[in-house]
Amino acid sequence: MLNYRPYLFPFVLFLLQMVFIFLLGFYSQYEYYPISNVTDFENPPRGLVEFYYSMFTDIHVMMFIGFGFLMTFLSHYSYSAIGFNFILCAFTVEWALIMRGFIFDWDASKQKFLIDVESLSTADFVSASILISMGAVLGQVSPLQLILMAFFEVPIQVVNEWIGTHFFCANDAGESMFVHVFGAYFGLAVAFVLFRSNILDSPLEKSRYTSDLFSIIGTMFLFCFWPSFNAGTTHGVERLHAITNTYVSICASVIGAFLMSTIVRKGKLDMVHIQNSTLAGGVAIGTVATSDIGFHGAMIIGTLAGMISVLGFHSLLPKLQRIHVHDTCGVNNLHGMPGLMAAIAGIIIAFFGNRSGYLNHLTDVCLTGGKKRTNNIQSAYQVAALLLTLCMGVVGGLITGSILRLPIFVQKYENFEDEPIWHLPDEGQTDDAGSLNKNLDRRFSVIPTANLNKNLQKRFSIFPA
Amino acid sequence: MLNYRPYLFPFVLFLLQMVFIFLLGFYSQYEYYPISNVTDFENPPRGLVEFYYSMFTDIHVMMFIGFGFLMTFLSHYSYSAIGFNFILCAFTVEWALIMRGFIFDWDASKQKFLIDVESLSTADFVSASILISMGAVLGQVSPLQLILMAFFEVPIQVVNEWIGTHFFCANDAGESMFVHVFGAYFGLAVAFVLFRSNILDSPLEKSRYTSDLFSIIGTMFLFCFWPSFNAGTTHGVERLHAITNTYVSICASVIGAFLMSTIVRKGKLDMVHIQNSTLAGGVAIGTVATSDIGFHGAMIIGTLAGMISVLGFHSLLPKLQRIHVHDTCGVNNLHGMPGLMAAIAGIIIAFFGNRSGYLNHLTDVCLTGGKKRTNNIQSAYQVAALLLTLCMGVVGGLITGSILRLPIFVQKYENFEDEPIWHLPDEGQTDDAGSLNKNLDRRFSVIPTANLNKNLQKRFSIFPA
Amino acid sequence: MLNYRPYLFPFVLFLLQMVFIFLLGFYSQYEYYPISNVTDFENPPRGLVEFYYSMFTDIHVMMFIGFGFLMTFLSHYSYSAIGFNFILCAFTVEWALIMRGFIFDWDASKQKFLIDVESLSTADFVSASILISMGAVLGQVSPLQLILMAFFEVPIQVVNEWIGTHFFCANDAGESMFVHVFGAYFGLAVAFVLFRSNILDSPLEKSRYTSDLFSIIGTMFLFCFWPSFNAGTTHGVERLHAITNTYVSICASVIGAFLMSTIVRKGKLDMVHIQNSTLAGGVAIGTVATSDIGFHGAMIIGTLAGMISVLGFHSLLPKLQRIHVHDTCGVNNLHGMPGLMAAIAGIIIAFFGNRSGYLNHLTDVCLTGGKKRTNNIQSAYQVAALLLTLCMGVVGGLITGSILRLPIFVQKYENFEDEPIWHLPDEGQTDDAGSLNKNLDRRFSVIPTANLNKNLQKRFSIFPA
Repeated sequence: MLNYRPYLFPFVLFLLQMVFIFLLGFYSQYEYYPISNVTDFENPPRGLVEFYYSMFTDIHVMMFIGFGFLMTFLSHYSYSAIGFNFILCAFTVEWALIMRGFIFDWDASKQKFLIDVESLSTADFVSASILISMGAVLGQVSPLQLILMAFFEVPIQVVNEWIGTHFFCANDAGESMFVHVFGAYFGLAVAFVLFRSNILDSPLEKSRYTSDLFSIIGTMFLFCFWPSFNAGTTHGVERLHAITNTYVSICASVIGAFLMSTIVRKGKLDMVHIQNSTLAGGVAIGTVATSDIGFHGAMIIGTLAGMISVLGFHSLLPKLQRIHVHDTCGVNNLHGMPGLMAAIAGIIIAFFGNRSGYLNHLTDVCLTGGKKRTNNIQSAYQVAALLLTLCMGVVGGLITGSILRLPIFVQKYENFEDEPIWHLPDEGQTDDAGSLNKNLDRRFSVIPTANLNKNLQKRFSIFPA
Repeated sequence: MLNYRPYLFPFVLFLLQMVFIFLLGFYSQYEYYPISNVTDFENPPRGLVEFYYSMFTDIHVMMFIGFGFLMTFLSHYSYSAIGFNFILCAFTVEWALIMRGFIFDWDASKQKFLIDVESLSTADFVSASILISMGAVLGQVSPLQLILMAFFEVPIQVVNEWIGTHFFCANDAGESMFVHVFGAYFGLAVAFVLFRSNILDSPLEKSRYTSDLFSIIGTMFLFCFWPSFNAGTTHGVERLHAITNTYVSICASVIGAFLMSTIVRKGKLDMVHIQNSTLAGGVAIGTVATSDIGFHGAMIIGTLAGMISVLGFHSLLPKLQRIHVHDTCGVNNLHGMPGLMAAIAGIIIAFFGNRSGYLNHLTDVCLTGGKKRTNNIQSAYQVAALLLTLCMGVVGGLITGSILRLPIFVQKYENFEDEPIWHLPDEGQTDDAGSLNKNLDRRFSVIPTANLNKNLQKRFSIFPA
Repeated sequence: MLNYRPYLFPFVLFLLQMVFIFLLGFYSQYEYYPISNVTDFENPPRGLVEFYYSMFTDIHVMMFIGFGFLMTFLSHYSYSAIGFNFILCAFTVEWALIMRGFIFDWDASKQKFLIDVESLSTADFVSASILISMGAVLGQVSPLQLILMAFFEVPIQVVNEWIGTHFFCANDAGESMFVHVFGAYFGLAVAFVLFRSNILDSPLEKSRYTSDLFSIIGTMFLFCFWPSFNAGTTHGVERLHAITNTYVSICASVIGAFLMSTIVRKGKLDMVHIQNSTLAGGVAIGTVATSDIGFHGAMIIGTLAGMISVLGFHSLLPKLQRIHVHDTCGVNNLHGMPGLMAAIAGIIIAFFGNRSGYLNHLTDVCLTGGKKRTNNIQSAYQVAALLLTLCMGVVGGLITGSILRLPIFVQKYENFEDEPIWHLPDEGQTDDAGSLNKNLDRRFSVIPTANLNKNLQKRFSIFPA
């Protein structure tokens, strides 16, 4: 009997790709604005190539290389990390182009949505959300489940952001709420639903020297281009604020992460903290990045974010496992909590209308006061946007997780292991001590292995029985 | 007796470098156009720094990091892959600056050719062609042979592109014909001439876990910056088309590659496809990237390219070996066939004059109709440019390969192995199981190895005889 | 008794971070210049986002990824290399923002210094100096010592550059004197003071196949973005000169390095040369990068720099050890000597006033002639700037080194080893042959190891006694 399960993944991909071709083909069109018609470069037309393209490529690198390599830290799951990040991100940007097109950029007169460089950048922002969720469930799900997760998560993310920005008129310059908080708690909710006890203490959930070095490639690119992420669709003085605030804040979080890592790990450094918590300043500054918060503001937010993120990895991560949330990449510590910090900073800065600049972003679309909102009302709407995001993230994640648990989608993959999913090189999965023995076993069957505990076997089998 | 052979490589390099210094020194000059004189940014002056520089650096990264790391996948040949890519690319950009200067940018009144940011970008395009050819013969030739290949290939590539663009007035926005098709079939022709039967089934022609991860660094940078490659010298609405079409098409080819990989490999993924075929959409959209093909067009081209490229790796690669073409990196599948797809798309789109925009590119230089060409005539010229490119590539490659086979240039290097070319670290060539044993042998000679099949020895020697 | 020493590092970081928050918070402010007010883009306002940002991100990548990965070549010290580069660079940019703010950009009327994209770029330039010094002492100092070194080095670097540019009005476009020469000789002076004889012939001071590949990631990004480094704060025709000269010169140094490496290493290539000397052309062109030196000038400088740098690695490095300067990364060969070449080129080109363009940079600030300087006087001032830089670097390094030797700062770390500083993955420090055995030992204690020479033990212990 043919086992149809492995072919569900390409079948679903093919089906959805056909749908996307149809939707993009019928409903989208190029949006070109001639640079020679631009009169005011402080308020340039949306998505002007000359103005936004170099930031867009930075953001693109963050998604595919930054997130992709950051997740390669697992010793036996690096192919899957970089590979699934690749397909998931490519899938998401297609789907996000369409969903954001219909919801944000629909031109009723032409019955089309428009595509320009801003569409490409915001599609990457949406994919950031989905990749963060992937981080929470890394190694616990099949590629098919990831694609389905993205399929459900994208519309929820887009609708949430649309309500937050168009209905509440909340400010979230660097998308710390709509991307980071949403993605993190959506992912954690999915992880909660998919939790299986055999995931705890898996011998494969560990890094090795080389995989940690690949991982920090991702860290470094995320670090370097984070100013572009937070400034990616801004202009005028807000652009300068976003760049300089983010630069200062994320440097400060490097300091915060290193010093707290040395403290909690008793005088030694922990690579997990260096790979992740150093970036918390980029998340935690997000919502207020375009505001006039002063460099002491940026420094304090960044330093605190780095420290809190390390504390999260050290103390909170194990506690979350006890309530059946296995957060593989620690997205709660890099995106969840620093995102909440950003949201709170956004609530506070809204009290200072002149510093937050929220008035510039109010439009007639916003109900309940619209352009004449007071500071206090704006703060309240910032709170509302945060609560909505948390709610949409958690509920959306619980529902999506329940769908992913349907028997048809569950595949008997081992956790944190490439082998069931990839054709690996002859040497076996890794070059390290463990796999050396494993390979030798495989090739020569010198030692009967059937009845040994698999992990012990790996370690011991180098010695002739 | 002194063995002069190892010193041929530095001697040739030195000699050619002297020639290049002379030619660049006497015949080139800076071409500066003050940005304050620019009146129409939709038609900016050639190579304007402010307009083109950030795309140039993207292209530069694609050449040195993208191509360089993509080729590091061989387990015992990673130093050579990244190292030879480095020297070959640096050599080629110097040589291409000169050749394109004399052929494309010669200013007869000054008796000089001009150098600006566009010169730097197009020199990188030429080097793409040469690096693609290098991919076909990777591990089969010495560094000296690579340098000589570049020395002969550069003028042929430049002349071919000059005829194609100035005589035929063919449109090839992303250089899919002039760079990808040319480079691929030139390289395959060289591989055919240099074919030796002992190259088949070399035990060293394989990847390992770590080398595959280095390789995908290259994939990711090529992916992220491909829009800059296709849009690198364009402006106005064509620039927007090139960016958005390429973004959509290359994402689509990721989907196509993943789904087809799972199918042909029976439910598992193959890293070779993920490293290469995911990029086929960037190549296949090239010729028509600046045209108004619609996003369904870009999606369909990308998806098909990804699928066809995987099929090529799976089915065609072994067949090519049987006719004595050993294509190490599978450039036929990533550059050759997707390049042909692009050329065909270019022929088709030319029938739709308004969509292809070919009229904007016609100049008085073009014979046979010139600016008044009809759609059909333009299509015919696109066909002519493709045929010329194939012909120049294959014949040029056969001749160049024959020169490289001259006894003086052939060095007794083993295939796919760094050791004869590099001083390697003490640990030996790799950290993997194979080399561990090999090293131990080397150091302690515990086991007599002389009469054992080398490969078997590598595998077995860990067990005391 | 509590061992306070490991906590000195986070304590000092915390203390200095508090000071930085205070200084940045009270004395800095955003400097925004609206692009719509710009009338002359050939002389754009300082740090204009739209004009400088994409070059700034390139420079940022060079610091964190370029320098960071370049130093990962040591087989057992890769975590420390990339990690300490990260913290040191983040620390330095904060500190440099402040020091350059007070010394270069102080606005007495506002009692503030201004922060814009140029501030971010120049802070990165300062950090380049400190990272070069780190290269000289890599593996010989603790993270605490590195932070303290940066704390003392930054003000000296800034003062030296201020005197050089504002008092001597020396031209140093790509900062080859103020950054490269200063950083290299400062670092070598520190290395001299900290020299301990047990550092020689450490069995851990070696690379392995994988660590060399990580290292060359750094090389490649430094190579690709070096034109942005040399052109990062220029505009007008000087920007074009800087980009094209650097592109040509650094390509030429790739050729020079490969050919000289093959010669001195008797027909084989040495990865150390390829990682480092290929970049010497970027350093050696620095001082004159913005000048009209012609492409033969750029080619000759680059080719020579690549060759000399290889000779330095091959011949000078061992000699320096004999006079008690252990230069771990060979910064004398990549930054020191090529920097001196650049300074000499700057002295020579100053004789040709029209080509060096020094008159454009003279201001009323410069004493002794100021705007009316002759060519000869300018050359003399270039000499003065070089001598001052050498003097400040060496004396500053000697004093700083003496402080770092104070008993309170010396920690008993082994040289070139991550293990005392990092929590490492279970597999032990590396995946290579050596650590395999080490791990097995650790886990099973098969072999009594106490009395064996540690290194021998590592190599032999795979064989049951």
